[in-house]
Amino acid sequence: MSVSPENRIRDSFNAQSLMRTFDARLERVAPGAVDISAPIGDNVRQQHGFAHAGLSFSLGDSAAGYSALSLLDEGHEVLTTEMKIHLLAPAAGDRLVARGGVIRAGRRLVVVEAKVFSVTSGAEKQVALMTGTMIPVPLG
Amino acid sequence: MSVSPENRIRDSFNAQSLMRTFDARLERVAPGAVDISAPIGDNVRQQHGFAHAGLSFSLGDSAAGYSALSLLDEGHEVLTTEMKIHLLAPAAGDRLVARGGVIRAGRRLVVVEAKVFSVTSGAEKQVALMTGTMIPVPLG
Amino acid sequence: MSVSPENRIRDSFNAQSLMRTFDARLERVAPGAVDISAPIGDNVRQQHGFAHAGLSFSLGDSAAGYSALSLLDEGHEVLTTEMKIHLLAPAAGDRLVARGGVIRAGRRLVVVEAKVFSVTSGAEKQVALMTGTMIPVPLG
Amino acid sequence: MSVSPENRIRDSFNAQSLMRTFDARLERVAPGAVDISAPIGDNVRQQHGFAHAGLSFSLGDSAAGYSALSLLDEGHEVLTTEMKIHLLAPAAGDRLVARGGVIRAGRRLVVVEAKVFSVTSGAEKQVALMTGTMIPVPLG
Repeated sequence: MSVSPENRIRDSFNAQSLMRTFDARLERVAPGAVDISAPIGDNVRQQHGFAHAGLSFSLGDSAAGYSALSLLDEGHEVLTTEMKIHLLAPAAGDRLVARGGVIRAGRRLVVVEAKVFSVTSGAEKQVALMTGTMIPVPLG
Repeated sequence: MSVSPENRIRDSFNAQSLMRTFDARLERVAPGAVDISAPIGDNVRQQHGFAHAGLSFSLGDSAAGYSALSLLDEGHEVLTTEMKIHLLAPAAGDRLVARGGVIRAGRRLVVVEAKVFSVTSGAEKQVALMTGTMIPVPLG
Repeated sequence: MSVSPENRIRDSFNAQSLMRTFDARLERVAPGAVDISAPIGDNVRQQHGFAHAGLSFSLGDSAAGYSALSLLDEGHEVLTTEMKIHLLAPAAGDRLVARGGVIRAGRRLVVVEAKVFSVTSGAEKQVALMTGTMIPVPLG
Repeated sequence: MSVSPENRIRDSFNAQSLMRTFDARLERVAPGAVDISAPIGDNVRQQHGFAHAGLSFSLGDSAAGYSALSLLDEGHEVLTTEMKIHLLAPAAGDRLVARGGVIRAGRRLVVVEAKVFSVTSGAEKQVALMTGTMIPVPLG
């Protein structure tokens, strides 16, 4: 019995305890595009009260990884091998949303990106840009 | 009255709620070298039970930033502008420790690195390597 | 007497001997967007006959830097502080064209990107993606 | 008949026309460590007379790639998938020397670094730091 990419990704997401710690939500799963959001709560801040870069990174890394996974056959996982983040603006506001995407899907490597936005009263502002490399790994 | 670099860094570290969420400890503050550790607890894992890359990144980013701050005059903060992380091995074990350092301290930019190690029964294994750029910002 | 951004960039480009070695051309200068191309000649190849990654990097770095410079007041230069390149496909074909752009222009830093394409009989294929950081420096 | 790693690397290096354009020399081949140097000649400069970042990148990318190749079985090549360069100081002087090394050699990926130094009357100064990812590819 085959499992849809969305369900595989949802199961994997639910198994990430860090995403629960961040109260994160899987907002969207489409082929090659996955969005994850989380509140900028009192538990994720840096010393000036903005969201810590580690929150942007964590959401963006997961969104980018799942955007790669959404294009793979069942029976695969992906691992991040490297990721770069540019921090473009202070992450103020109510929530962060990370939009992951695939730049190039190869058999051996998937080059991915994520754009992270802060959301304040519904208005979005980009706070980070990430590019990285995922490797597909056969499960089991 | 002047405040020692160690005290400034400790105050800033204590003001980062994400570090508390991770139960992180400021292990060492020396000129140009700052270490931060945290347990690989049940709240910081990815889907295979290893520490999430976001934990390595968060500890490494803070350790690297404070290593830059340790070289600056009082009255400055640093901001991360970009950071790259290479994930070298699965982050299994009891704790992670991130050792930040300064590669080049300029007036306008500080190039930093962090090496992240997993610790299992006292044995260390490197799990990540980071390099990035910090900018000094005058306070207030 | 003021000098237009295009003329400042053209003068700077002409002063780069590496661009002459590559027989490179400044193809386009618009606010925040600069294109540079060069032939994939017999002097710029790697061991399999494709253009060397160093050619893609050189063209992309210059295009990205000038796209930042195009937004600055006269009397400034820009310096690359760091740059990451993803190599997406072998650089085969007649020419490379690097299209530089600005992601975020700050007073202290400009975050830039470049996309590098190979051109074969007029058809373009992306071979590299770059993101980096430029710092504005007052001249003289 | 087997070919020594040094000879394989030397043959590959000699097949890179960009290295000839830069008048580059393969200075050292050891397991996991390869050095390449080139003069800062009149054909490789940026607009202020320093060596162009593209020269540092090209030498460092090749040195890092060959340091990875030096650890692989005969019958493999390596390809750069991504590389980040930090530019630490202006590249003034007589020559550049790039010292490539291996951070972690995996079956599927090799994480590499290169440090680039300018040499002036025999004195070395680091001008760039690079980290990147190579993938081994079976030949023909």
